[in-house]
Amino acid sequence: MQTTHTDTIAAPATAQSIAAIALIRVSGPAAISSVFNIFKPLKKGLTTHTIESHKAYFGNINDSDKPIDEVLVTFFKGPNSFTGEDTAEISCHGSLFIQNEVLRLLMNHGARLAQPGEFTMRAFMNGRMDLSQAEAVADVIASTSAAQHRLAIQQLKGGFSKEIARLRQELIDFAALIELELDFGEEDVEFADRTRLTNLVTDIKQAVDSLAQSFAYGNAIKNGVPVVIAGKPNAGKSTLLNALLNEERAIVSDIAGTTRDTIEEVMVIDGISFRFVDTAGLRHTTDTIEMIGVERSYQKIKNAAILLYMFDAGSDATTLAEEQAIAQGFGIPYVLLANKSDVVAPEVLQHIEQHNNTIPISAKNNYGIKVLKERLIQLSGIAENTGSELVVTNLRHYEALKNASAALDKVNTGIANRTSGDFLAIDLRQALYHLGEITGAISPEDILGSIFSRFCIGK
Amino acid sequence: MQTTHTDTIAAPATAQSIAAIALIRVSGPAAISSVFNIFKPLKKGLTTHTIESHKAYFGNINDSDKPIDEVLVTFFKGPNSFTGEDTAEISCHGSLFIQNEVLRLLMNHGARLAQPGEFTMRAFMNGRMDLSQAEAVADVIASTSAAQHRLAIQQLKGGFSKEIARLRQELIDFAALIELELDFGEEDVEFADRTRLTNLVTDIKQAVDSLAQSFAYGNAIKNGVPVVIAGKPNAGKSTLLNALLNEERAIVSDIAGTTRDTIEEVMVIDGISFRFVDTAGLRHTTDTIEMIGVERSYQKIKNAAILLYMFDAGSDATTLAEEQAIAQGFGIPYVLLANKSDVVAPEVLQHIEQHNNTIPISAKNNYGIKVLKERLIQLSGIAENTGSELVVTNLRHYEALKNASAALDKVNTGIANRTSGDFLAIDLRQALYHLGEITGAISPEDILGSIFSRFCIGK
Repeated sequence: MQTTHTDTIAAPATAQSIAAIALIRVSGPAAISSVFNIFKPLKKGLTTHTIESHKAYFGNINDSDKPIDEVLVTFFKGPNSFTGEDTAEISCHGSLFIQNEVLRLLMNHGARLAQPGEFTMRAFMNGRMDLSQAEAVADVIASTSAAQHRLAIQQLKGGFSKEIARLRQELIDFAALIELELDFGEEDVEFADRTRLTNLVTDIKQAVDSLAQSFAYGNAIKNGVPVVIAGKPNAGKSTLLNALLNEERAIVSDIAGTTRDTIEEVMVIDGISFRFVDTAGLRHTTDTIEMIGVERSYQKIKNAAILLYMFDAGSDATTLAEEQAIAQGFGIPYVLLANKSDVVAPEVLQHIEQHNNTIPISAKNNYGIKVLKERLIQLSGIAENTGSELVVTNLRHYEALKNASAALDKVNTGIANRTSGDFLAIDLRQALYHLGEITGAISPEDILGSIFSRFCIGK
Repeated sequence: MQTTHTDTIAAPATAQSIAAIALIRVSGPAAISSVFNIFKPLKKGLTTHTIESHKAYFGNINDSDKPIDEVLVTFFKGPNSFTGEDTAEISCHGSLFIQNEVLRLLMNHGARLAQPGEFTMRAFMNGRMDLSQAEAVADVIASTSAAQHRLAIQQLKGGFSKEIARLRQELIDFAALIELELDFGEEDVEFADRTRLTNLVTDIKQAVDSLAQSFAYGNAIKNGVPVVIAGKPNAGKSTLLNALLNEERAIVSDIAGTTRDTIEEVMVIDGISFRFVDTAGLRHTTDTIEMIGVERSYQKIKNAAILLYMFDAGSDATTLAEEQAIAQGFGIPYVLLANKSDVVAPEVLQHIEQHNNTIPISAKNNYGIKVLKERLIQLSGIAENTGSELVVTNLRHYEALKNASAALDKVNTGIANRTSGDFLAIDLRQALYHLGEITGAISPEDILGSIFSRFCIGK
């Protein structure tokens, strides 16, 4: 996998708007020399040979005689850098004009503009990190909640990679036994005890499946726990969304590209992201066309993790039972929200409070919102302080694990059917291949491209 | 001016959105120790005593046992830092969540959040730069055109400060002569030759006035050369703006807060910012109320540096002379733009081309736009390659220079009237005070506050 790049790349590494400081990163064999072409250090006599690695030097960036900026440049000599190559980081004033000028000068002196994710791709190609760690870099950067951040940092630190490497090693050891048999194929020898083999494969498959299963949880953390807010029109759904948003204005945003026919809002409650989906106009109808629309809303609810079903507490007790029947019908964890509970008679409130899975609230007057949040965290199953368990957050990893699991299934079936070692070996190699995909132990260039293209430029 | 701050400040120094890298800056007596409270360097045994200045160390930021990020920390030991104090720069992943966590941890370990501009204010207070250089830092960051950038870098490098210091020194030498006379006041001695004094003050005043006069030019560069586009309705003013904008889409923006009853667009042509003002509906009227409105438009034109007066080239030659009479009436440099010139008869076009200050264009078909741009640059009087002349770009400096000039006038009047040295000294001190204001040689704290509050946070 160790690759030597012959070209030198450069890109801004900090956000592209006006700020006190901006960082421009240069990496590749000509990184240090191309920076020295435009950088005049204050320290007299400093050359590309006398610079120390990891040291920041003050000086000027000049375009011939024209001063561009006063900067700090830190050099990192490969392989002790992020990419594993010679690297320079130019810390200049955060003017867009200056950043563009510095980049233009670098382009004129042997560097080219980096593609998104190209620095991290080089780090991977040069063996500074495996593929799942490289993907974690993007996740760390994108993390907006404590839970997302915890899983991304864990993956960056290689915990997940180690577990995959352990499983692969067990499979390789197992494969060695099978392949040994192949060498003696003519003699019809069985070196490996078939029962022991079955148990071994079953153990590995269990570990793989357990990782795959963690994806539901990991995905909920990464993309937010999907919560559907449903109920009849005017039940107060939008008011509830606003009430939740108003209290948690820290990190609130529409998810770009996911807003389709429903409104989605992401908010972080106690370090956990929730993705609230507002399904408008859910009501009984006999109109065929309208039924299709309603059917779609129903589908959306079924794909959610939690259903908040709202109704007007002013309605009588019969309605409460009816609403519960509807909510239960979706077969997912739900909470009945009796809205406008602050204006009902005491006996009605008491009746609501005693009802299963029901929380009296007032979206308008912020009553009961705290209790609702606690219930949401409880229903999400994601406690902020859950330990160091391994969790899969990446769809690509999940699919690789599912494929590995299917291949292991075939191995076990093969053993049960006393299939010859040749055929077992094919399925084993398949399982190894899929596990290897996760960390990049085996991975064609085109798969890499699609992973790194979702990175920020400059990373 | 040397001041020792007892508190330690911290702030993000890079732009606040998601990016590969973000930089957090910490400065003050506890900068190194507070970072060491949360930073675990990879290098074993590294302590606050064994760190080298200007060296980047890789390691982890932890919140107790919880990993927050893998970071690079560069330490700068005072006085060899931007602020002159002990400083640490934490280069972390550019996630907003991580940045907030790192700042929160720093707050828990002895730092407080910096005010906007507080780092640069400390650099000034600790004698690392004078006041006009500190102001230049903000200008460098805000610069969006080559010309703005050139003046800001020049001011940052201290060229302007040196000239002010030179003028102050001459005044101080002069004042010494006058004050010597005061000591011998009883004896009615005149040590200083009055004619020589007058010449000296006149020379200094000329230098001060010349700097003050450069403000018109400096302000045009900094805030853009104001160009008014006028003409009858439907002359094609908006189409012209779009034609200019379409070609120069690099740096185009509305100026926040300046858009009132007219539309303003800033664009950079050949490194020079132009501020185009579109005055809608300029026409002759007899209605009193409407006349007031038109009068305001006329005022706006008179405050501009250049007038682009548009008319329809389809009109006959009489109109051309009429339009010129109107344009000339404003008394500022103007260009007549004969729009829709691509559809007029050849003889009409020839007539237009021979007319003074007239450019045939077609805003719709981009005809003549290049010639117009060249004329704009010529009329602006700002050539990109003008040398290293000193230019005042700051209103505060301009006012100080005007005040100094007025005080010097009084000194000269005093000399002419053979006023006694006591009174000359008062005016001289006034002139010295105003020149000192520019570089901060004399400056009350409250003036400083207003200068630094317009900085980015983290600077």
